[in-house]
Amino acid sequence: MPIPPSEKAMVPFVSVEDMMRLVHEIGVEEMLLQLTDRIEAEFLRWDEFDKTPRLASHSVNGVIELMPASDSTSFAFKYVNGHPRNTFNGLQTVAAFGLLADVATGYPLLLAEMTLLTALRTAATSAFAARHLAPKGATTMALVGNGAQAEFQALAMKAVLGIKNIRLYDVDPAATAKVMANLAQSGLTLVPCVSAEAAVEGADIITTATADKQLATILTDNMVGRGIHINAIGGDCPGKTELHPDILRRAQTFVEFTPQTRIEGEIQQMEPDYPVTELWEVLSGQAPGRADASQITLFDSVGFAVEDFAALSYVLEKINAKGGSTQLDLIADPDDPRDLFGMLIRAAA
Amino acid sequence: MPIPPSEKAMVPFVSVEDMMRLVHEIGVEEMLLQLTDRIEAEFLRWDEFDKTPRLASHSVNGVIELMPASDSTSFAFKYVNGHPRNTFNGLQTVAAFGLLADVATGYPLLLAEMTLLTALRTAATSAFAARHLAPKGATTMALVGNGAQAEFQALAMKAVLGIKNIRLYDVDPAATAKVMANLAQSGLTLVPCVSAEAAVEGADIITTATADKQLATILTDNMVGRGIHINAIGGDCPGKTELHPDILRRAQTFVEFTPQTRIEGEIQQMEPDYPVTELWEVLSGQAPGRADASQITLFDSVGFAVEDFAALSYVLEKINAKGGSTQLDLIADPDDPRDLFGMLIRAAA
Repeated sequence: MPIPPSEKAMVPFVSVEDMMRLVHEIGVEEMLLQLTDRIEAEFLRWDEFDKTPRLASHSVNGVIELMPASDSTSFAFKYVNGHPRNTFNGLQTVAAFGLLADVATGYPLLLAEMTLLTALRTAATSAFAARHLAPKGATTMALVGNGAQAEFQALAMKAVLGIKNIRLYDVDPAATAKVMANLAQSGLTLVPCVSAEAAVEGADIITTATADKQLATILTDNMVGRGIHINAIGGDCPGKTELHPDILRRAQTFVEFTPQTRIEGEIQQMEPDYPVTELWEVLSGQAPGRADASQITLFDSVGFAVEDFAALSYVLEKINAKGGSTQLDLIADPDDPRDLFGMLIRAAA
Repeated sequence: MPIPPSEKAMVPFVSVEDMMRLVHEIGVEEMLLQLTDRIEAEFLRWDEFDKTPRLASHSVNGVIELMPASDSTSFAFKYVNGHPRNTFNGLQTVAAFGLLADVATGYPLLLAEMTLLTALRTAATSAFAARHLAPKGATTMALVGNGAQAEFQALAMKAVLGIKNIRLYDVDPAATAKVMANLAQSGLTLVPCVSAEAAVEGADIITTATADKQLATILTDNMVGRGIHINAIGGDCPGKTELHPDILRRAQTFVEFTPQTRIEGEIQQMEPDYPVTELWEVLSGQAPGRADASQITLFDSVGFAVEDFAALSYVLEKINAKGGSTQLDLIADPDDPRDLFGMLIRAAA
């Protein structure tokens, strides 16, 4: 083609390699801390967002979701799948990418990988919730399910809450060994455990992050003592839960966006009027967070589009400041906008 | 980064330049013909698709939409905006890109520009509808609104129906002059007209493709004679129509997907039970197309996700056969899928 695409045709693209480079430049824990603050800041202006439950396309093997969120200036969406059996074929359970666009023109501002970014923002959201809900002075977290999300959860809780000890359990000891190796230099004290029951002993926070798509019971009621904060990550789509309903009957449950969590979260097991508090209500002071030291708090995390909006906006700011993206020829840009066909025929010349 | 991304990390990307090259390799009219056949084939297996009205995010200046459609093997979605005032800033009214993914794994198969591809598939859909609805032996089309979609409409009607004469009108004579210049070598006889009334004289098909976001009256009832087929492209979102409701009272109206067209099409002006026929019903023989030579038929086109599914599948087949894409490092691909964090820390080495 003789004429190179113009600047308006170009959209900055942050590849997986670009994202890894960005994380290392900032530092994993520092980036988790910054993302936690950023997500919290976005939840504080909750009313300014157009919010909708994600659009989910379910199939035998998994789900493909589109997650949009927008305010008056930016529109974000994420494409994300969830296919638990993918690991048997050497593929990721969750792969994702996302886009940030300018509401005023509809033009894309950023296209980015979001497999890594989702792992980071999910952990940051857990940390933001735990900052308001975990018992004061928490030092020990049980981490049940040691898959792709595990290390991010551990480091976010260290960076944001000062968690020092992680008690690990997975049905597959190799997964636990992987986390032990990956976090060996992290400064965390890591304790592999023989069962979920053993892992929760002495824990202030219990994080469940298992991947099986079923109504599983990772935690039973007897395993959850008074004063615990439960950070339930894995129960995040219809037919996929981790907690016995008796736990939900004792706990005060906090959610991101109620209409979505009723469909996807642990609370899908409960009656439709099971009481929940949205995180933004705690932030804004409209609802209490943890009421007292003996309360069981539950963050029924499913992942919400405002978190992706926050993460993409954050990445755009960073690459605007530091570079680290490539330009994609994604948008047709004729000299005269009405002359799309003219651009096409002139390209043949 | 020392380790290059693996093959699983890579997604074929068809840029604007790649798409223009593909169109020229195949030929514009041949590609319009092939897309028409492909879209018709997909509409024939209508029941196999998961269908949903597009997710629209409206703002002062325009709309941003996500349009998903899937069958049991593939999932497609398109990101598309509609911002009529963009032309004043040298930007496209409509810019789009899309993705095709594998339902079995959730992994992307193709990322492609879709500004050009949408123009092509919109014209191909009009031609597919006209093939079943236009009067027999139609030779002349009025084309009211001579913007970015105009040439594609003219060439699709030529390639698929054998239309020979195009009668052009636009409020801006420069737009008509642009079409005259762009189609000078097309073999079509082009007649610029001083008004919409003049343009429709002697026409067998009237195509309206104007861009203003308002309840406009591009066609009034007296302008539409017996036996005409109206191909109404521009009325495609809430608050944006082109036809006087009296025309709809005389016409038999055909739509893509009723729940979406009730919100976005010309029929948003009518009562909720205004009768419509879906195009797939005509294809499958469950409903008649054009009943007789005197009937006014109206294709109330708004654009539906199954058309994008068809267009993206078509492009994927072509680039698999011919090449013409680049590889994007879009999907994180750790050696062990559960070891996303390990991939990240090893990248720093």
